[in-house]
Amino acid sequence: MDIDQTKIPQATAKRLPLYYRYLKNLSASGKQRVSSAELSEAIKVDSATIRRDFSYFGALGKKGYGYNVHYLLSFFSKTLDQDETTKVALIGVGNLGTAFLHYNFIKNNNTKIELAFDADEEKVNQEIGGVPVYHIDEFTKQIKEKDISVVILTVPVHVAQSIADQMNDTGIRGILNFTPARLTVPDHIRVHHIDLAVELQALVYFMKHYPV
Amino acid sequence: MDIDQTKIPQATAKRLPLYYRYLKNLSASGKQRVSSAELSEAIKVDSATIRRDFSYFGALGKKGYGYNVHYLLSFFSKTLDQDETTKVALIGVGNLGTAFLHYNFIKNNNTKIELAFDADEEKVNQEIGGVPVYHIDEFTKQIKEKDISVVILTVPVHVAQSIADQMNDTGIRGILNFTPARLTVPDHIRVHHIDLAVELQALVYFMKHYPV
Repeated sequence: MDIDQTKIPQATAKRLPLYYRYLKNLSASGKQRVSSAELSEAIKVDSATIRRDFSYFGALGKKGYGYNVHYLLSFFSKTLDQDETTKVALIGVGNLGTAFLHYNFIKNNNTKIELAFDADEEKVNQEIGGVPVYHIDEFTKQIKEKDISVVILTVPVHVAQSIADQMNDTGIRGILNFTPARLTVPDHIRVHHIDLAVELQALVYFMKHYPV
Repeated sequence: MDIDQTKIPQATAKRLPLYYRYLKNLSASGKQRVSSAELSEAIKVDSATIRRDFSYFGALGKKGYGYNVHYLLSFFSKTLDQDETTKVALIGVGNLGTAFLHYNFIKNNNTKIELAFDADEEKVNQEIGGVPVYHIDEFTKQIKEKDISVVILTVPVHVAQSIADQMNDTGIRGILNFTPARLTVPDHIRVHHIDLAVELQALVYFMKHYPV
């Protein structure tokens, strides 16, 4: 299982958490093997893609047997560093931010929202979903103290860049950006961008031009 | 500009709404041409990708001039059917659903949330973000009456599939699914799946294995 991670295509890498979660449930239910067809049906990824993805991990299914659940699970667990929890901070406790705080990330996961920030005094010094909310003015101090490496950004678009600018000299190396702002950040910070309007528009485009 | 839409790669298609929004802002500010480098800086997509994407649309930038903003904008507007508004319903008015209702999709867009549904009597018969909330029992009736073709699904995971099952004989052809459930739907319905936990885990994986 000594795979050169950088050889895994990015599209494959994005499916790893999905595979991992499903296999964990299979294993918990006592299942010892699974076919690519069963996996395909359950997670809605076509089976040719699953077989190609798994071949990168050296997992070759056997005809009439399928894949060994335990082997796959231990591979994914190691690959996704399930033993190591990544500490996350959330900035912007509006509706979207509150939804995240109530979402139990830790359950099947290696990430934990440790603290949240907002500029609204009424939200500060509360706990939401078990996560303490601090004032945004304490951002740099708390981020360093709590050793946070990832930020979920759910603030209004007009403050997104100025908040991102405060992350330069902290330990932050990743931003999950839910604002429509395209952020300018130093090279060592990776930004994944999820724009809800773009996702909706893309779905409509695909409905029209790639009929299923 | 008579492009065969099905020849555009899906990865390119997903960037169309992003290009469109930025070009619209450029045009509104009176700009008449733009280089791939400027576009790249603004929307954080590398310029080689932008040039390749644009070549599919027959838009070939000129050295030292760049692209004609008006040409690109009219192409994207036509391609994304900006003249035609797609009617959307939202199901599940929790924190995430409420965030969507307050999000002004129509602004730069061709989609509009016309109505919302929830099972909670306290939310029914209200307007949230200007969108009326109906009881989920009225779902089939309202969807048909209002000619809805897309659904945003922000319900608890355990009811996701049973709600999806009610969409079969309506005019719904697309679901933007924010629940962790992998939905089973008829062939004529396209599901785009956004799993917040998977997105976060993927970001952490990429931070570790694809250093920037």
